[in-house]
Amino acid sequence: MELQEIMLEKAKAAKNASYKLNTLSTQVKNKALLAMADILEHRKSVILEANAQDLEDAKKRNVKRSYLDRLMLDENRISGMADGLRQTASLPDPVGEVDYSAIRPNGLEIRSVRVPLGVVGIIYEARPNVTSDAAGLCLKAGNAVLLRGGSDSIRSNKAIVQLLQDAAYNTGIPEGAIQFVDVTDREAVNIMTHLDGYLDVIIPRGGAGLIKAVVGNSSVPVIETGTGVCHTYVDASADLNMALEIAENAKVSRPSVCNAMETLLLHESVAEYFLPMLTVAMMDKNCELRGCEKCLAIVPTMKPATEEDWSTEYGDLILSIKVVRDIDEAIEHINKYNTGHSETIVTESLANAHAFQWRVNAAAVYVNASTRFSDGGEFGFGAEIGISTQKLHARGPMGLRALTTNKYMIYGEGQIR
Amino acid sequence: MELQEIMLEKAKAAKNASYKLNTLSTQVKNKALLAMADILEHRKSVILEANAQDLEDAKKRNVKRSYLDRLMLDENRISGMADGLRQTASLPDPVGEVDYSAIRPNGLEIRSVRVPLGVVGIIYEARPNVTSDAAGLCLKAGNAVLLRGGSDSIRSNKAIVQLLQDAAYNTGIPEGAIQFVDVTDREAVNIMTHLDGYLDVIIPRGGAGLIKAVVGNSSVPVIETGTGVCHTYVDASADLNMALEIAENAKVSRPSVCNAMETLLLHESVAEYFLPMLTVAMMDKNCELRGCEKCLAIVPTMKPATEEDWSTEYGDLILSIKVVRDIDEAIEHINKYNTGHSETIVTESLANAHAFQWRVNAAAVYVNASTRFSDGGEFGFGAEIGISTQKLHARGPMGLRALTTNKYMIYGEGQIR
Repeated sequence: MELQEIMLEKAKAAKNASYKLNTLSTQVKNKALLAMADILEHRKSVILEANAQDLEDAKKRNVKRSYLDRLMLDENRISGMADGLRQTASLPDPVGEVDYSAIRPNGLEIRSVRVPLGVVGIIYEARPNVTSDAAGLCLKAGNAVLLRGGSDSIRSNKAIVQLLQDAAYNTGIPEGAIQFVDVTDREAVNIMTHLDGYLDVIIPRGGAGLIKAVVGNSSVPVIETGTGVCHTYVDASADLNMALEIAENAKVSRPSVCNAMETLLLHESVAEYFLPMLTVAMMDKNCELRGCEKCLAIVPTMKPATEEDWSTEYGDLILSIKVVRDIDEAIEHINKYNTGHSETIVTESLANAHAFQWRVNAAAVYVNASTRFSDGGEFGFGAEIGISTQKLHARGPMGLRALTTNKYMIYGEGQIR
Repeated sequence: MELQEIMLEKAKAAKNASYKLNTLSTQVKNKALLAMADILEHRKSVILEANAQDLEDAKKRNVKRSYLDRLMLDENRISGMADGLRQTASLPDPVGEVDYSAIRPNGLEIRSVRVPLGVVGIIYEARPNVTSDAAGLCLKAGNAVLLRGGSDSIRSNKAIVQLLQDAAYNTGIPEGAIQFVDVTDREAVNIMTHLDGYLDVIIPRGGAGLIKAVVGNSSVPVIETGTGVCHTYVDASADLNMALEIAENAKVSRPSVCNAMETLLLHESVAEYFLPMLTVAMMDKNCELRGCEKCLAIVPTMKPATEEDWSTEYGDLILSIKVVRDIDEAIEHINKYNTGHSETIVTESLANAHAFQWRVNAAAVYVNASTRFSDGGEFGFGAEIGISTQKLHARGPMGLRALTTNKYMIYGEGQIR
């Protein structure tokens, strides 16, 4: 069978299942999620075996150790996946929530009700845990899912999906609800992004390259996630000890994630005192610093930052630093170079905190806290399917609600207009 | 100057204005809206003169009378535009509404606040009133707007925009907030749909052709609006007098609009009694009927419907009719042929009403009421920028809130993770 046909068949099966998932009770969905969690743990040997093969192949290609680590599954990580599904089961079901209601003068009762999106496509890279996370979240929100993982983890993903399908379909989930692209051909992604009429949305999860390729190509609506050039601005009135703690945490606690800081902006009145402190602290963490001219005048040993640095997501222990005249220059710089993810100001000034939060263009704008908190769990959503950096539909960490749409349900008694 | 440059300059000006509009008080925005309303009425002669020229040109091209009517402005219609702006001023400002809040265990205060989208692009056709409607709604929601009207109404639109700009910029709206493409070259639309980074969204308003062209081409996110293949399903248990009233209203009260019915579905147990009644009523309104085979067996004079009829938005006094076995066939037919706009069931059965509302895939699903109510005003939003037939961001009639996004504003006291 042609790849095009294979993909279409999967999409159709998902679409058909979505019509039944639509009205499935929370009870049935939760039962399935718990069964899915259990089966991952009970049959972990199947997953570990498949994963061992994936790892072996990857090693042959001499990939980085950090990459192998992302690919690798062990008992703990499988338990983590199971626990994720159990947590999803414990979350409130967004389907059926009424987000607008009115009884109109003519007696029409209008309700906007949250309903599933339909079929969600997920295109992701190495980490096999995305397979169960995404399947669980989509299912809980009443959606069918079409999963397309990276070719390096194809065996692990396939093993996981087969177990999830078994458990789900045995507990009342309509067949077809969990679809997996078991073809490594890159053309599959191209076909997937043109399954208009079958897929309601595609959420890419992975590096900037993957996201850019999907966004640029797709005729199915895409929710852009997870590219983060995040800033910390240390204002003139900042508590500098707090600023140092926040900067350190935002940069070094987990430099590879999208909510980590890439650029520090310093008000010129605090630069002379703060920069040497920061340099010592960051050197201690093996973090490379790249500064603007004013920075170099204060700390001459610093590497000079180039124009490219201001828009680079290092994902690594590198930090660019710029001294700014005032908060206006800081906001302007951020709005020019950021990716709309997360930004923070350290300040004691009420007016500046307010101006920063309203004028900075980003999904999450913090006052006196680390950007590292941009996360569905930290925000109280229980879980997240990704962090949207776009303005339409969902912005910021996306929980279950972002996997739903609304439908107006209107009750009348014969009204005509 | 090249068209590309002209467009870019307009987009940049809008973007710059959007950063100021962002924090403009409701008071200033309302004052501007009222001044905009006043100037349209005070200087109506300028608009009428420009409109007369547009009409003259259009007449030379022998366009349809209905088209001329849409293009035509008179004193009443200008007052209507002014009243629209006054009504927009009277609506609550969506900016600043908090739609999620939590104080997390670590003390972080998280609020999701509605904020303007930024710059909204509107691409529309003949009706010049869209110019003031769209400008007013975008402004009230704190957005800058880039308007691109049809070439046939270019003089009218230009006159309206110049008055609106005068009034707005004189009452505290930042210059650049209202942009108008005063070039009729079709290439302008192509350029506009690729102004990523400047435009945050494009909303096309017009016929199916325009919308398809914009959606298929745009790298700026688009909100699809206003294509409506709407159905009325008359269930076995329907009150047939009510069904007749609803069907008549949905079809003939204004056949050219997107919430008008195009196809009537009839449960087979009521067809024999209902069809002759309907035929008489519709003939009385000069409405052409096109039926399935079962229809023709009952009313042999009816024109046979072809496969194409089921997916056609007539926008005219034509109705296709299909007899169905049961509610399942009705729902299946609708989900296959509809455009996701508005659907209604006439029934006395609670179970069927429930099934229909949950299983039909559309923005608005009615029980015992005409689909003609799908409208921002009728839903209680005061005004509408369009009716979205897509699932992401906004679905159904879009009021001011659909012209905003959310931003997480987080208040901390030095929290790190």
